[in-house]
Amino acid sequence: MKTFGYFDDKNREYVITDPATPFPWINYLGNEDFFGLISNTGGGYDFYKDAKFRRITRYRYNGVPMDAGGRYFYIREEAPLSPPEGGTIDPSAKTIEAPSGAVGGAPACIWSPGWKPCKTALDSYECRHGMNYTRITGSKNGVEASVLFFVPLKTWAEVQKLTLTNKSGETKRLKLFSFTEWCLWNAATDMENFQRNWSTGEVEIEKAPLSPPEGGTIDPSASKTIEAPSGAVGGATTIYHKTEYKERRNHYAYYALTNAEAQGFDTDRESFIGLYSDFSNPQCVMAGKPSNSVAHGWSPIASHYVEVELQPGESKDFIFVLGYAENEQEKKFETQASLSSPEGKAPLSSPEGDTIDPSASKTIEAPSGAVGGALLTSLGSLDRTIINKEKAHAVIARFSTVEAVDAAFEELCQMWDGLLSKFTVESGNERLDRMVNIWNQYQCMITFCFSRSASFFESGVGRGMGFRDSNQDLVGFVHQIPSRARQRIIDIASTQFPDGGCYHQYQPLTKRGNNDIGGGFNDDPCWLIFGTVAYIKETGDFSILDEMVPFDNQPGTEVTLFEHLRISFDHVVNNLGPHALPLIGRADWNDCLNLNCFSWDPNESFQTTENNSEGSKAESLMIAGLFVLTGKQYVELCRELGKRSDGAAAYAKANGEGSDGAAAYTEEADRAQGCIDAMVEVVKKHGWDGEWYLRAYDFYGNKIGSKECEEGKIFIESQGFCTMAGIGLEDGMVDKALDSCKKYLDCEHGMVLNNPAFTRYYVEMGEISSYPAGYKENAGIFCHNNPWVIIGETVARRGNDAWEHYTKICPAWIKDQQLHKVEPYVYCQMVAGKDAAKPGEGKNSWLTGTAAWNWLTVTQYILGIRPTFDGLEIDPCIPSTLTEYKVHRVLRDAEFEIMVKNPDGKESGVTSITLDGKTVERDRAIPATPGKHTVEVIM
Amino acid sequence: MKTFGYFDDKNREYVITDPATPFPWINYLGNEDFFGLISNTGGGYDFYKDAKFRRITRYRYNGVPMDAGGRYFYIREEAPLSPPEGGTIDPSAKTIEAPSGAVGGAPACIWSPGWKPCKTALDSYECRHGMNYTRITGSKNGVEASVLFFVPLKTWAEVQKLTLTNKSGETKRLKLFSFTEWCLWNAATDMENFQRNWSTGEVEIEKAPLSPPEGGTIDPSASKTIEAPSGAVGGATTIYHKTEYKERRNHYAYYALTNAEAQGFDTDRESFIGLYSDFSNPQCVMAGKPSNSVAHGWSPIASHYVEVELQPGESKDFIFVLGYAENEQEKKFETQASLSSPEGKAPLSSPEGDTIDPSASKTIEAPSGAVGGALLTSLGSLDRTIINKEKAHAVIARFSTVEAVDAAFEELCQMWDGLLSKFTVESGNERLDRMVNIWNQYQCMITFCFSRSASFFESGVGRGMGFRDSNQDLVGFVHQIPSRARQRIIDIASTQFPDGGCYHQYQPLTKRGNNDIGGGFNDDPCWLIFGTVAYIKETGDFSILDEMVPFDNQPGTEVTLFEHLRISFDHVVNNLGPHALPLIGRADWNDCLNLNCFSWDPNESFQTTENNSEGSKAESLMIAGLFVLTGKQYVELCRELGKRSDGAAAYAKANGEGSDGAAAYTEEADRAQGCIDAMVEVVKKHGWDGEWYLRAYDFYGNKIGSKECEEGKIFIESQGFCTMAGIGLEDGMVDKALDSCKKYLDCEHGMVLNNPAFTRYYVEMGEISSYPAGYKENAGIFCHNNPWVIIGETVARRGNDAWEHYTKICPAWIKDQQLHKVEPYVYCQMVAGKDAAKPGEGKNSWLTGTAAWNWLTVTQYILGIRPTFDGLEIDPCIPSTLTEYKVHRVLRDAEFEIMVKNPDGKESGVTSITLDGKTVERDRAIPATPGKHTVEVIM
Repeated sequence: MKTFGYFDDKNREYVITDPATPFPWINYLGNEDFFGLISNTGGGYDFYKDAKFRRITRYRYNGVPMDAGGRYFYIREEAPLSPPEGGTIDPSAKTIEAPSGAVGGAPACIWSPGWKPCKTALDSYECRHGMNYTRITGSKNGVEASVLFFVPLKTWAEVQKLTLTNKSGETKRLKLFSFTEWCLWNAATDMENFQRNWSTGEVEIEKAPLSPPEGGTIDPSASKTIEAPSGAVGGATTIYHKTEYKERRNHYAYYALTNAEAQGFDTDRESFIGLYSDFSNPQCVMAGKPSNSVAHGWSPIASHYVEVELQPGESKDFIFVLGYAENEQEKKFETQASLSSPEGKAPLSSPEGDTIDPSASKTIEAPSGAVGGALLTSLGSLDRTIINKEKAHAVIARFSTVEAVDAAFEELCQMWDGLLSKFTVESGNERLDRMVNIWNQYQCMITFCFSRSASFFESGVGRGMGFRDSNQDLVGFVHQIPSRARQRIIDIASTQFPDGGCYHQYQPLTKRGNNDIGGGFNDDPCWLIFGTVAYIKETGDFSILDEMVPFDNQPGTEVTLFEHLRISFDHVVNNLGPHALPLIGRADWNDCLNLNCFSWDPNESFQTTENNSEGSKAESLMIAGLFVLTGKQYVELCRELGKRSDGAAAYAKANGEGSDGAAAYTEEADRAQGCIDAMVEVVKKHGWDGEWYLRAYDFYGNKIGSKECEEGKIFIESQGFCTMAGIGLEDGMVDKALDSCKKYLDCEHGMVLNNPAFTRYYVEMGEISSYPAGYKENAGIFCHNNPWVIIGETVARRGNDAWEHYTKICPAWIKDQQLHKVEPYVYCQMVAGKDAAKPGEGKNSWLTGTAAWNWLTVTQYILGIRPTFDGLEIDPCIPSTLTEYKVHRVLRDAEFEIMVKNPDGKESGVTSITLDGKTVERDRAIPATPGKHTVEVIM
Repeated sequence: MKTFGYFDDKNREYVITDPATPFPWINYLGNEDFFGLISNTGGGYDFYKDAKFRRITRYRYNGVPMDAGGRYFYIREEAPLSPPEGGTIDPSAKTIEAPSGAVGGAPACIWSPGWKPCKTALDSYECRHGMNYTRITGSKNGVEASVLFFVPLKTWAEVQKLTLTNKSGETKRLKLFSFTEWCLWNAATDMENFQRNWSTGEVEIEKAPLSPPEGGTIDPSASKTIEAPSGAVGGATTIYHKTEYKERRNHYAYYALTNAEAQGFDTDRESFIGLYSDFSNPQCVMAGKPSNSVAHGWSPIASHYVEVELQPGESKDFIFVLGYAENEQEKKFETQASLSSPEGKAPLSSPEGDTIDPSASKTIEAPSGAVGGALLTSLGSLDRTIINKEKAHAVIARFSTVEAVDAAFEELCQMWDGLLSKFTVESGNERLDRMVNIWNQYQCMITFCFSRSASFFESGVGRGMGFRDSNQDLVGFVHQIPSRARQRIIDIASTQFPDGGCYHQYQPLTKRGNNDIGGGFNDDPCWLIFGTVAYIKETGDFSILDEMVPFDNQPGTEVTLFEHLRISFDHVVNNLGPHALPLIGRADWNDCLNLNCFSWDPNESFQTTENNSEGSKAESLMIAGLFVLTGKQYVELCRELGKRSDGAAAYAKANGEGSDGAAAYTEEADRAQGCIDAMVEVVKKHGWDGEWYLRAYDFYGNKIGSKECEEGKIFIESQGFCTMAGIGLEDGMVDKALDSCKKYLDCEHGMVLNNPAFTRYYVEMGEISSYPAGYKENAGIFCHNNPWVIIGETVARRGNDAWEHYTKICPAWIKDQQLHKVEPYVYCQMVAGKDAAKPGEGKNSWLTGTAAWNWLTVTQYILGIRPTFDGLEIDPCIPSTLTEYKVHRVLRDAEFEIMVKNPDGKESGVTSITLDGKTVERDRAIPATPGKHTVEVIM
C-alpha cells in the first residue's frame, strides 16, 4: 500500500517523503500569540491571535490547485544542465527559453525546496513536521535547500532559516526569490470587498545596515537609512506591509532578510507573478530578475531577490523573519527628524503658504530595473505615513545571526521537552507510545491554541471559542500548562448567565459571548463542571473555586466559581421535560440534532433558529448521561470540599464567618446526589430501549434512536455517556449497550454516530439529516465520541474491546494513507462511515475534541493513570496481550515512575500496588507527595 | 500604443483580439432572473436573482492567476503535429508525453477556444462582447471552435452553442471536455464553511434520449431512463447539482449536452483536475479520458466528454445548457413508479420488516473507465432523494436543436433592437454615437439588473440594493423599460420610514430594508424625488403617485407615493444644522465622508458607526445643492399636479371629495419654493468660500472644502450639485466654481474628487482620509460625479467645457488601454487621480451610478433632448465644432426624428424649432402626441 511518510519517534517528527500527499498535510507553528499553519510543501498562512481579524498573510481555501499560496522559495540555476553521462535531461525540470534575441542564453532550472509551487521534480524531498516547527528539504542538481520554519518563544514572528548547500563538485550560481502575500488584516473582508481593498494596499521597503558596531549593540532607532551603501554586506532588506496603518490600524507586518544583502525585491503581486502566471511560474522568476515593484493598491506581496554563489561543498544560511508589530497611537509614526535624506532625494515638504502643488506629493518609485537600490516608497509623504519601525528592527536584529536563530530553536525544543515530560509511556508497542508520548499530546496543545478556528478545514473566519469545546479541550492540556488552563476556565465561566445557561461561543480577542450564536445548548453548563474538576484533580488548586467570576462579563455580577458550578448543575435540574429527562434546548453535544428548529428555509441556521421552543418536550439522553457523569464529579467535589479546611474556609468567606462550610458542602453533596439518583431512575425507566439507550425524545414526545424508528435506530452519544456514567451497570444495561454499539455502529474504521443513516430530511431532527448518509453527524465515524464508548468499555471492565475500538480510530494504526487522505499523525473529527461512498476517508483533521477525549481515554481509562483530588489512582483496563508498561507521570510536585505488570494477561483489575517499595492500601490514591517516587502495580 | 480590441458598432460589439488583456474584460448575460458574468476568456459565474444566496457556479475572486474558473472547453487533438514545411513546432502548444509504456503514442495538442485556461498559443482568437451575449472564437491547427454564450429570454439557463469547424484538408479527431464547477448555493458560506461543505456535495447523472417522437413533441416526464441505449443518438447527458436538495433547498442546477451523445463525464473536481493540477491542465484532459467520477462531498463539478470526428470542411454544433430550476415542495422528488430499472441494476428498495441492512444503501458508481454508461448516482436511495427533473427536461428539450437556439438568440437580439431604439443619435462623431447608441445604454441596463452586487470588483456577497443607487440608476434605464422602473420606485419607497428617512440598502430577494446598514444617510430621501420625477417625465404616468406604499414594508402603514415624496422633501427641511444647512447624518452621497463617526477601531464600519451623532453640527453643502435641485423638481411636480385634472382627482381621493386639489398643490408648491429660496440664501451666505462652494461643516462647525483647510480645500460634489441647482448663477458663483474645478480638480483623465488629497487620517472626516492619496474618494477621479460638474457647465451654457470634461472620462475616448486596465467600453467608478502612483489606472468598472449620470448628461444636457411632463424640451449645449446631429427619440407613444443644426458654431441656444414643419413657440415643450414626428432645431 502506498505510503507518503513515516514516524521518526526519536526526533518527535513525522517525515513526509512524497510531496504529493493525498491532501495537504499540515503542521502548526507558534503556541502563544503568533501562529502559522504550514503544509508539507510550505503552503499556509500566519496570523496574530485571531485568524479572522489579524490575518497576516493571505491564503485561499479550496483553491485550484489546493493549497496554493504560502511561504515560498524559488531557486533558479542559470547554468546549463548537462545530461548525466549516458543519460537524458529530466523532462519535468522547468526549463525556460532564453530571452528572445539573447546570445548564448542557456536554459534555466527553477525549483522549490518543497516541490510546490514549482513542482519541478526534485532529486530528493523530505518534510519533517515536528513540535511547532517544520523542516522542508529538497535538492536538485547537486544543490540542497533546507528550510526550518518556527516561531521563537515570546516572539511575534515566524523565522525561516534557509540553508543552501552545494553538494556538487562545481561552483553553483543561484538566484533565490522569497515570496509571501499579505492579507489585508481582516480575513473575511479581504476576500469580499475588492472595490475598496484593491485601492488601499501600501508598503514600505527598507534596506538598512544592521551589523552591530564593533563590541557594541545595535541601536534599533538608528537603522533607518533609506538606501544601503552600495556593496554593503549584512544589511537587512525588509518589506513592510502597512495597509490602513495610516488610519486606524496600529499594527504592521514585515518580511525581512536579516543576514544577507538582497539585490532586489518585489512588493506588487502582478508585477512579480503576472496576471496570467501563477505561483508555479512567476514572471520575475521566469525572467530571472526582480522588478523592484512598489505596491500601490491591488495585492501587496513581499519577495526578496538574492544572488548566491556556492563553491563545491559550501553552505550558506539565509534568515528570513516574517513578523508583526503593534505601536502605541502616539508612537505610530517616524518622527520627521529621523528621516534622513539621501543625497539628491530630499523629501518634498509642503511649500509655505496656502497652495499645495498636488503633483509634488507623488510617490517616487525605485528606478525600473535597478538592483540593490531599495527606496522608501513614500519619500514625498508627510511623516504621519511612515511607520515607526523600532519594534521590527529589534526583532530583526535579534534574529540576524545563525547562532541566535539556532539558540531560539533550541529553546523551543526544550519547552517541548518540558511539556511532553509530564506523561510518558513505554509499553513495547511503538504505536501506542508515539501517540501517548508525542502526537496525542501535541494535538491537544494545538486544539488549546486554536480551538476550532484555523485549520485546512476551518477557514479562520467563522467560529469563536466554544464553551463546550474549550472545556473538553482542557482535559487534553491541563497537565502540560495548568496556569493557562486556569485562565481558560475563568474566561469560559465569565460568559455564563445567572441561570446557569451560557453563550455557546465566545470571541478570543474580546472574551465576550458571541451574540450571533447566543445560548440555549443545554449540555453546555455541565461541561464547566467537567473542565473545572479536571483542572483541580490535576493541580490540587482548589483556590480556583474562590475566584470571583462575573455573569456575561458584566462587572458587579461576580460570584465564586464554585457558585457557577452549582448553577451549572442546577441548570439541568431546572430544565427537565415531560419524562423528567433534560430538555435539549437548541441542541446538546450534537449541534446537528436540532429538535426545536423545524426549518424549511435554507437561509436559516439550524443552530440559531428555534421555531418551536415554546412548549417543547424535546429531551436528551446524552445530557442525562452527561449530567449523571459530571454530577458525580460535582458531588465528589462537594464532599472533598467538606473534608478540606480550604473548602470550608471558602464557604465561610462566601457565607460569613461562623457558617459551617463542611456541613454545608455535605448537604449540597447529598442534595445533588439525590438529583443524580433520580435521573438514573428516569433513564432506566424512560431512556432504555431494550438493547441500548434511547437518544432523545423529539418535540412531539416521539422516540429518537429506538428500534421503533425507521432510520437512526441507535445513536452513539447516549451509549457513550450513559455507559461512562455507569447507568444500569448492575442491571446489565451497560454491557448490552456496548454490545449493541459493536453490532450496529462499529465497522473496520470505527463506530458510526448513528445507524441506519438518514436517507432523507427529517424536519423534526434538523441538520443531522441534512448530510449525505455516512458523512459527518449522519452516520459518519465521529472520532470525537468513539472514546466515550471506549471509556464505557472500561467501566464494563472490557479491556480487549476498549483496545480494539481505540486502535481503529487511532492515527498510529492507519493502514491506508491514500484512503485516509488527511494527516496520519493526528486525529480527524470525522471519518466517512460504512454508509458512505468511500468508507474510511478522513476529514476535518486537527481541531477536534477527539484529541482531548482520546488523551483522557488512553491515559486515564486504558493505561488507567488517573489523577484524583488526593493524588493518583491506578486502574488499568488494557488488552490482555499487554504484559507490562512503564509510565512516567509528573503530578503537581511529584514525579512518579510507574511500572504496571500484567503477568496473567488480564484485561483489568489490580492485585497490588507498592509506592516507593511500600504497599498501598486498596482504593487509596497514591498521594502527590513532592519528590520522585517509584510505583509498582501488579494486575 | 498597444490595443487589445476595437468597437464593432454595426454589430454592437466590442471585439477583443488579444486574450491577455490588462485585466479580465467582462460582459453580462441575462437581464431578468438568471444572470452570468463572463470574461473574455470564458471566466466568471452564473447566479439566479441574488449573487449571494443563489450562486450557481463557483468563482474565486482575487485568484492567482486572476480569473481562474468559469465555463471552459478543452479540445484535445491526438494527431501528431507535423511541423509546417521548413518550420518548427510552436513550443507554446501544450504537448504531453505519451503514456509510459505506450507504443506509437503521439503527443497531443490541448487548447481552449478562449486561450485560457490552457493558454496554448492559438492560431486565431477573438472575443465579441455584445448585448447580453458573448462569442469567443479560437482556432488551432486547422480547427476553429466558436462558442456563443447567452441567456435566452424568460429562461433560467445559460445556453452555450459550441461550433467546431474543420478548416483543414484532413480528417480531424478531437476529444472535447466541457467544464464548470458548482457553487454550494450560498456564495458566502461556500468560501468559509469547509468543515460542512466538503461533506455535503451531491450530484445525479442522467443520460436520456430526447428526440421527439416523429411528428410529435417530447413528453418531459418520459425522459428519465437511467441509461441510454448504447449507440443512441441525440440523447442528452445531464449532470445535476443537488447539494442540500434533499433537505431545505427546493432548487437544483444542471449542465446538459442537449444535442449529442457524451461518451463520458466527470462530477468530482479532484477526479477531473487532480489535487496538484489546475484549470490549465486537468489530469483527465491530460490523460485524454474522463474518469466518470461521481461526486460525494468535496467539490462537485460538471464535465462532459465527447469524441468528435470532423471531415475536411465539416462543422458540428454542440449545445450545452447550464440551468437552474425550482420545484414546489410537494413535487420535489421523483415518484417511485417512474424510476425505471435498467436490466440487472434494479434499485435497492428497503427490505420488508424492521432492519435495514446499511450496506444496501450504498451508492453504485459507474464502473471505472466505462464509456457511454452514465448511471444515476443514487440507485439505492429512496425516491425522496431523487430530483423530479421535469422542469430541467423541458428546458433541455427546448434547446436541443440548433434551430431553436438560433431562434432564441435572434429573439434576444430583437429585444435589444427594441431597447436601443428609444434613443439614437447620428452626430458624425463615431465615439459619441457608439456611447449614446450602444454602450452607455447597455451599461445602464446592466446597473439596473445588478445594482452594485456582482462584478469583477463586487464579489456578490456584500451589498444589497442602495436606496440612493437605485434612484440614480433609474434615470439611465427608465426610457428602455418604464414598467420595471415603476416597480423599482415602489420597492424603494416601501423601505422609507414615516419621518422621510430610509434604509440605505434593501435586499433584492426580500425587498426588505437591510438592518445591518440601517439608515441615517441624509441625502437618501431627496433621491426618491429625483427618480420618481424622472419616471413621470419619461412616461407621463402620474398614476404612480396614487400608489399606496407602506413604510418599512409594514402592512397597514400605506400612504400615497406622493406623500412619500412630500416627507422626503421635508426630511431635509426638518433636519437642518446650526447654519440652517442640511445635517449630513452618517454620510451624504459620499459614503466615505463620515463626519459623525470618529472611529479609532479598525473593526468598526465607517458607515454604520456613529460615535458622535448627538448634538452633531455636521452639515452638507452637497445635500443643500441636491435639495435645491430636487426641490425644484418637487415644486414643478406640485404645480403640474395643480394644473392637471388627474392630480386634483388624486388629491381629492386622498383628502375626501370636494377638497380642492388644484389649490392644495399650488399651496404646497409655494411652501416648498419658500424652503428652497431659503436654502439658496443660506448656501450663498454660509456655503460660499470665495472661489467655490464649501463641502461641509464638520462636527465642530469647522469648514470642510475651504481654502482655509490644509488638505481637501475643494471638493467636487458641492460644486456639482450647487452649479446644477444654479445657486448663485446670477452672482457669478456658478462660473467661478466651474473655473475652480478646472483649475484645481481637473487633469488629463478627468476631475478628481478633492484637492489636495489627504495624506493622513482625519478622524473627524472618516473613511475618505483612509485611502491612499489619489484613490477612490480620496482624490480619485470618481467618474460618477464628473457629470454633475458637466451638467453645471451646461447650466452656465459652456458647451465646449462640458464637452471637454465629458470626453475625458468617456470610455470611447480612452487613449491608453494598458494604463486604463479595465474594460474600454464601459465606465468605471474610479480612475486613479493625479496624486496617485499611476494616474489614469481604472478600477471598479461596470456597476456604478456613473453610467446613469453620464447618460442623463449626454442626452438631456449636452444633446439637450429632455423629457418634460408635457413632452420634449430641446436645449443643446454642445461643442462649437459640432455642426449638426440627428436624434431619434421615442417618448411614450410619440416617435421623433430630431435634426439639430448648428450653422454658426454655437455652444448653446436655440433660434428656432419646427415640429412637423410648424414653428414651435419658444419655451414650449414639444408635445408627445402619438405618432411619428419630425423636429428641426436651429441653434
